[in-house]
Amino acid sequence: MSGHSEADFQLDPRLAADTVLVADWPLCRVLLMDDARFPWLILVPRRTGVAELDDLARTDRLQLLDETDRALALLRGLGPCDKINVGALGNIVRQLHVHVVARLQGDGAWPGPVWGVGTAQPYPSTEREALLARLRQA
Amino acid sequence: MSGHSEADFQLDPRLAADTVLVADWPLCRVLLMDDARFPWLILVPRRTGVAELDDLARTDRLQLLDETDRALALLRGLGPCDKINVGALGNIVRQLHVHVVARLQGDGAWPGPVWGVGTAQPYPSTEREALLARLRQA
Repeated sequence: MSGHSEADFQLDPRLAADTVLVADWPLCRVLLMDDARFPWLILVPRRTGVAELDDLARTDRLQLLDETDRALALLRGLGPCDKINVGALGNIVRQLHVHVVARLQGDGAWPGPVWGVGTAQPYPSTEREALLARLRQA
Repeated sequence: MSGHSEADFQLDPRLAADTVLVADWPLCRVLLMDDARFPWLILVPRRTGVAELDDLARTDRLQLLDETDRALALLRGLGPCDKINVGALGNIVRQLHVHVVARLQGDGAWPGPVWGVGTAQPYPSTEREALLARLRQA
């Protein structure tokens, strides 16, 4: 595998199962975690064979930085937010993906991390569609 | 506060309490979490008034990227490692800091995140000194 080709990119099915597609940005597939407890985006660089941040080519790394900033701004635009958590973990799904999660004091995992806490609460479908429309417009 | 001055930098006392100093890199104060369960570095940009990644000036942001890569390489050099977790959370300590944690399948938090799991196990002092010496040499 080239490690840097887009043609063969396939989203890990476990990421696909937990999320809905927001958009493809220049580098990343942008996903919304289908969990109404936390405003939560996941950025997946459309590259193959990439698990760690430093597996990315330098130009992709810089693009990921810009797209991470864009995700931060997008989440702030959705509503009140006390802190944004950014993390690349990948212990379960190895395909490189960056979590960007808006946190509120007193949310269901505060002040701990969101990963592995409780059970996702899927958005009601009208709420999900409205949120996706806002995210795609922004 | 300027947001980008080094002169007034003071490490948050809660970060100081949980860690030992490894070194000052060009941007970051590099700390070793004093927890023998996980090889765990924390990078703290020596800037004031910075809580979110996008609070950093662009040049600092690029430097943080380089220093994060350096931390990844440093942890890989310490021994076997199945995955590296990188995260900027800051729900408790607002001073921007980036966790870089080497993970092994079957470690005490696997496959979950390390934050908030169990109780830190401080290194025995000889082991801590030996590890610090290795980290400082590398």
